Amino acid sequence: MPHAIDLNADLGEGYGPWRMGDDDAMLDVVTSASVACGFHAGDQEIMARTFAHAKEKGVAIGAHIGFPDLWGFGRRAIPLSVAEIEHIVAYQLGAAMALATYSGYRISHVKAHGALANSAESDPSVATAIARAVRVVEPSLTMLAIALSEQTRAAERAGLRVANEIFADRAYTEDGRLKPRRETGAVLKNIDAVIGRARNMIVEGALITESGQRLKTPIESICVHGDNPHAVEMARCLRAALEEEHFTLRAFAPHQA
Amino acid sequence: MPHAIDLNADLGEGYGPWRMGDDDAMLDVVTSASVACGFHAGDQEIMARTFAHAKEKGVAIGAHIGFPDLWGFGRRAIPLSVAEIEHIVAYQLGAAMALATYSGYRISHVKAHGALANSAESDPSVATAIARAVRVVEPSLTMLAIALSEQTRAAERAGLRVANEIFADRAYTEDGRLKPRRETGAVLKNIDAVIGRARNMIVEGALITESGQRLKTPIESICVHGDNPHAVEMARCLRAALEEEHFTLRAFAPHQA
Amino acid sequence: MPHAIDLNADLGEGYGPWRMGDDDAMLDVVTSASVACGFHAGDQEIMARTFAHAKEKGVAIGAHIGFPDLWGFGRRAIPLSVAEIEHIVAYQLGAAMALATYSGYRISHVKAHGALANSAESDPSVATAIARAVRVVEPSLTMLAIALSEQTRAAERAGLRVANEIFADRAYTEDGRLKPRRETGAVLKNIDAVIGRARNMIVEGALITESGQRLKTPIESICVHGDNPHAVEMARCLRAALEEEHFTLRAFAPHQA
Amino acid sequence: MPHAIDLNADLGEGYGPWRMGDDDAMLDVVTSASVACGFHAGDQEIMARTFAHAKEKGVAIGAHIGFPDLWGFGRRAIPLSVAEIEHIVAYQLGAAMALATYSGYRISHVKAHGALANSAESDPSVATAIARAVRVVEPSLTMLAIALSEQTRAAERAGLRVANEIFADRAYTEDGRLKPRRETGAVLKNIDAVIGRARNMIVEGALITESGQRLKTPIESICVHGDNPHAVEMARCLRAALEEEHFTLRAFAPHQA
Repeated sequence: MPHAIDLNADLGEGYGPWRMGDDDAMLDVVTSASVACGFHAGDQEIMARTFAHAKEKGVAIGAHIGFPDLWGFGRRAIPLSVAEIEHIVAYQLGAAMALATYSGYRISHVKAHGALANSAESDPSVATAIARAVRVVEPSLTMLAIALSEQTRAAERAGLRVANEIFADRAYTEDGRLKPRRETGAVLKNIDAVIGRARNMIVEGALITESGQRLKTPIESICVHGDNPHAVEMARCLRAALEEEHFTLRAFAPHQA
Repeated sequence: MPHAIDLNADLGEGYGPWRMGDDDAMLDVVTSASVACGFHAGDQEIMARTFAHAKEKGVAIGAHIGFPDLWGFGRRAIPLSVAEIEHIVAYQLGAAMALATYSGYRISHVKAHGALANSAESDPSVATAIARAVRVVEPSLTMLAIALSEQTRAAERAGLRVANEIFADRAYTEDGRLKPRRETGAVLKNIDAVIGRARNMIVEGALITESGQRLKTPIESICVHGDNPHAVEMARCLRAALEEEHFTLRAFAPHQA
Repeated sequence: MPHAIDLNADLGEGYGPWRMGDDDAMLDVVTSASVACGFHAGDQEIMARTFAHAKEKGVAIGAHIGFPDLWGFGRRAIPLSVAEIEHIVAYQLGAAMALATYSGYRISHVKAHGALANSAESDPSVATAIARAVRVVEPSLTMLAIALSEQTRAAERAGLRVANEIFADRAYTEDGRLKPRRETGAVLKNIDAVIGRARNMIVEGALITESGQRLKTPIESICVHGDNPHAVEMARCLRAALEEEHFTLRAFAPHQA
Repeated sequence: MPHAIDLNADLGEGYGPWRMGDDDAMLDVVTSASVACGFHAGDQEIMARTFAHAKEKGVAIGAHIGFPDLWGFGRRAIPLSVAEIEHIVAYQLGAAMALATYSGYRISHVKAHGALANSAESDPSVATAIARAVRVVEPSLTMLAIALSEQTRAAERAGLRVANEIFADRAYTEDGRLKPRRETGAVLKNIDAVIGRARNMIVEGALITESGQRLKTPIESICVHGDNPHAVEMARCLRAALEEEHFTLRAFAPHQA
């Protein structure tokens, strides 16, 4: 009995003359793309181009919202109030929706980036602020959120559709959190181990922690990072492995015309 | 037989800790407010607050779109391609629509700011780029454009509703253009002269140039600048003078819930 | 036996088209000015103008260094490493030195702004990073630092000249820290109380806490805030009161040609 | 009789998380590096690192100054007044000098980037503004300027040392100007042709235009671009070819401790 799963990557993370990763290659592999909205990365040129390419390739798109911190790539925790977080989410979401429209496409999901996602993983007030802004601006959007996080709970309380996301190449602590990037072993490099673990997580419906503990959760999407050529290779191998086991690769949210 | 006219001002032109003009006082006088969208001025905090105050006071709101140039306040002509202009318009428009929604309100118009407006006054390709972006993102919006400009023509060609705007305190050259700010006499300071000229332009349905020439045009709105306390006084006097002559002050575009 | 004391204010805190406070009026009152360097506020135009005006009026100048956060006016604690802090200090200091040279003047001191100053008040690693950057770039500069803070200690350890600063209108906690701005009573509004307390602090050579406790410290400078017209009035009254009591108002660091 | 020549590249052109070109590889080839100062690219982290690496490798360093336009990478002509240009040059120069000091090194030259360089190539007022700012801030610096440009003349008039630069991979028009990047054939791709032409220009002491015309000029430096891996290869081949012909590769300005 085949199981449907989404592969998502964070794309459009350049700015002005700069690029990060090989977005075109990644769009041939993933089924959903979360596109930076100009706060932690991205600009209106890159957004328009990425949305247009995603449409051509039938990849669903989302708004990848972050802290206003280009220099820090959204990985620094900027101390903002709950109201300020609601406003930055609304602003980025609106900009992404407009540029998607301009590209003849529609946003189907929202995902938090970097330090904002980390904060929403464990802080209910931040998670609720994000969910509230999405619900007010466009309640039909799906929240793509870290599995077992405060963000999934807050989005559900807000009445939003939720897609639970696991990370192909990130280690999980015993309480189900993403191991911080600065710690040893946080980012998994061995492709075979990554693929094996990802498949097991999907099949078992559980996060697998560093010690091998299973933490039950629904899983609708796997995140593959898009910021180096190695990442494209990892994504391709993961996709091939999942297809071999008769998983259906498709976006968790239907593409919308 | 009373004539309806709109008074508009450019508001929300602060950034972070900085403010420009007395927005709250101006919102008591005008019937439409064009709110900066974060490119030449404004940020998501100021946008949310200005939209909320405008709603409370029954003032119609619009997106005031500009070049990406906070330091230059959008008054420098940034050389962008037509495609780049379409994208900056779409981005700002989407952000404004989302923050208006967040404030329980709706954008009813779009207006170009500073060097972008000057460019769209005389360059058909820029005027068309702006109109095209608006039509694609939200065709129900009214384009608030300088009377007798390329912008009004481009918006009409694009099928948008157009509101023709005159400027209460800016001199007009003999070919109906705004006299550049850096030239002597470009900004009128005498309140009585400003009011007399504005009333005459509305009654006669014509721009009045420096030499007194009349250039026929429909006029739906008068722009009063919002960037000093004197401007509030001028706006109040102008409103009072128009009401005395039995003009009905109301927004050119209906407020939308 | 008259006592010499410096009055300092933070100036040049505008950006692009925006201004904060009445710098010209303040330059008639103070003996030292700390000028924003473009990270939390200020830009090269404002810096050049403020340095030139300060020179005309014989006011000593310093570099007012902050976090890279225009939108938050440097009042948000941006999480940076010690090395990153050294680099932002060096960058801002160099820019200020060059623009002072351009204005025919010289920087005589360095002062941290907002969240960076708050961090350096209590965190020895931040205080040391700032002192180290100053010593490497220009060891002849005086560090203008919050009295009884880690910053004064770190600057002394680095071999820098230190000027200890008290705040005319900010309340002190019992352990000698500035009461956070967001707390009630943090900013004193009553001019008479402010002047009386400031005079007592100088005469007694001690901070006076909210409960009236005296904490001994050398005091070379009093900071008067520059961000509203009321502040100019407070500064003038404070200066007059000190002159009446035969204090000599002069910069802690000699003006340098 | 061997001839000394400098190879220069523009380095440190990343920002925050983004990189452009392979700076470390380029530092093994060139004798001078012009480092972006944070306006068109670069930030204090990248500057400190690039200066430190250049010092390790004995490569002379300069401040690569540009328009304040990260998004446009300094390639858009931002309309600034002469005074504004002087201030942006002073600011960037000071910041670069401070970070070089911090890295235990010293700036030996200044070079304009992108649209600022293009403007200074043909506009004497811009060229003079740049030269004047350099002379005021640090008159011992060498101006690295496009050969036969207004910039070389303005720098000489200002009493600065000048190094005349030719571009290895850029076509020259018949009047000795760089062919604009957007035009066909502006950037030369064939390594053998590039090397042959560069050698001929140095040996003959002349620019070689598209038609083969020779325009006499002193030549102290050849610019090799640093923004792709191919560029590193081209630089290596050019260096090898020049060494084979017994040119001495060395910086036009002595490294300074």
